[in-house]
Amino acid sequence: MSATPVTIAVDVMGGDVGPAITIPGALSVLSDARAVRLILVGQSARINPLLVACPPSVRARVEVLEASEVVAMDESPRDAIRRKKDSSLRRALDCVANGQAQACISAGNTGALMGCAHFVLGTVPGVERAAIVAGVPTLIGRTVMLDLGANATATPTQLCQFATMGSVVAGVRADGSAPRVGLLNIGHEEIKGTVTVKAAHALLQVSALTYVGYVEADEIFTGAVDVVVTDGFSGNVALKSMEGLARMIGQGIREEFTLSLSRKLAAWFARPALLGLKERWDPRRYNGASMAGLAGVVVKSHGGADSLAFGYAVRRAIAEAQSNVPTQIAKALQSQVP
Amino acid sequence: MSATPVTIAVDVMGGDVGPAITIPGALSVLSDARAVRLILVGQSARINPLLVACPPSVRARVEVLEASEVVAMDESPRDAIRRKKDSSLRRALDCVANGQAQACISAGNTGALMGCAHFVLGTVPGVERAAIVAGVPTLIGRTVMLDLGANATATPTQLCQFATMGSVVAGVRADGSAPRVGLLNIGHEEIKGTVTVKAAHALLQVSALTYVGYVEADEIFTGAVDVVVTDGFSGNVALKSMEGLARMIGQGIREEFTLSLSRKLAAWFARPALLGLKERWDPRRYNGASMAGLAGVVVKSHGGADSLAFGYAVRRAIAEAQSNVPTQIAKALQSQVP
Repeated sequence: MSATPVTIAVDVMGGDVGPAITIPGALSVLSDARAVRLILVGQSARINPLLVACPPSVRARVEVLEASEVVAMDESPRDAIRRKKDSSLRRALDCVANGQAQACISAGNTGALMGCAHFVLGTVPGVERAAIVAGVPTLIGRTVMLDLGANATATPTQLCQFATMGSVVAGVRADGSAPRVGLLNIGHEEIKGTVTVKAAHALLQVSALTYVGYVEADEIFTGAVDVVVTDGFSGNVALKSMEGLARMIGQGIREEFTLSLSRKLAAWFARPALLGLKERWDPRRYNGASMAGLAGVVVKSHGGADSLAFGYAVRRAIAEAQSNVPTQIAKALQSQVP
Repeated sequence: MSATPVTIAVDVMGGDVGPAITIPGALSVLSDARAVRLILVGQSARINPLLVACPPSVRARVEVLEASEVVAMDESPRDAIRRKKDSSLRRALDCVANGQAQACISAGNTGALMGCAHFVLGTVPGVERAAIVAGVPTLIGRTVMLDLGANATATPTQLCQFATMGSVVAGVRADGSAPRVGLLNIGHEEIKGTVTVKAAHALLQVSALTYVGYVEADEIFTGAVDVVVTDGFSGNVALKSMEGLARMIGQGIREEFTLSLSRKLAAWFARPALLGLKERWDPRRYNGASMAGLAGVVVKSHGGADSLAFGYAVRRAIAEAQSNVPTQIAKALQSQVP
């Protein structure tokens, strides 16, 4: 991790469990990220007891910001914006808006986070719609995919903006070249797809991006591209399909290896391989979706994340803050306007 | 398998390999499907040698129909329709159109099969668009999903027709109740989704179907519904995501169990569990997508299917022919017109 000093505002009250998960998760990243400071936002009476055992070197980089309210997981975005002005979620976003922090992270209510983030931060100049972006595991690394559900539809122009935003989030490749962008479609032939997808394809072909053309959903996992662009409906369908299938296969593996005593014995012998398999695509390592296109870094952790997973989402927030993704997106979009 | 006598027209020339795969695959189902006859359509010079070893009891139920031409896997549907009137694909469809067969199966060019099938058979009265439908494995059985890519977009009315078509293909449940239908969306809340999805939701709520509401893509695998309805774009994205992820996980399992000598030894101990896993969701058992809504049963096998997989697709054609899916769809749609 580079040494650009950044401060991350953490909504510690969000998520299925709250402070008992988010605080240890956030603190865990401080030991090897020495240029990072945290603002833990929430009810200090619940936060302070969890900081008692904290070593002084870590504690010195942690600030507590009182926020009396909590946005419920099922609260409407509208209510969160209008009524919960002293919520941990809102106060954490305020930290980014007023420059106290360079990124905000929450495991709370997704809709409320998106709604409040739009309201508090707004979008980067030139961005019509923010998009949810996350890394998806592939055979050889990870692919950045967006939109994962912020917008049920997207115009060709918006899809092109997503492509730019995704390229910034993906960053330059190991060999220094620009990330390769693919547009999700249901075939490679020019006649395939919707009118919108075809129009976006035409725009991307003349863009400054490294656009490789259409990709089908099975190619998300081959590493053929670094960025997969689609609207929030298809993106969400692809992501949830993966989650559902991965869960089903995981359960199948557990069942097959516990069917009988001999199978359980085999599982004991196979433990290193099974653990290797588990680690290889551990969803916790992919935790943390960011809301690209907003005028500030906002990362959403899975609500059910454990401390390890929450830590990975905090690392995502740090990385995006250190490379200043919003400014990069603004520049990249500006350079593409003729 | 019920004993309704049916004849299946098999395009033996289609697929990556052709007769050497399709003929053994098709013949394999005849032993336990005694009411079934086959018309093997293609170049008889390539077919007859493969029938020499066929037992007389099976051979008696097999007819060979000469078709001199073959539609290439990359040929345009338009060319296939206009120029290849003596192709195995076209002749097999003709068998359904003229009543010689009650279903047609091909592992050939999907676009050409769809185009020719539309041209030769047309749709059932009341059906605006045919849809590709197939079974997807779940934790507890299988879910019928459509459209898997025939139509990049679908109107609310068309989505409702897909729901009816899918319900017919799914058939009554084990307890005699009607199949439960879900509409694919990116959330369960009423505000989620596109205008089209919301309008389809409203139509389905007042339909005669057992409509349970929105499902998210991870619920495809839980068995919460028997039929998942969506447009061909999202359906194709969901299907291809699954295929890609399953392939990646399969490769990961192979890699983890061959990393070292001790891992290979563990794989030997774990062989029954690993085989169980492989069999559990063997994609060959799910081979065979049908084109629901056409005025005849048309089943598409995967082009790369082996004999076993092709046999499963033939069984799907037999099942749909025996339950007369096109007539059932026509009746179901008619009963829903006010």
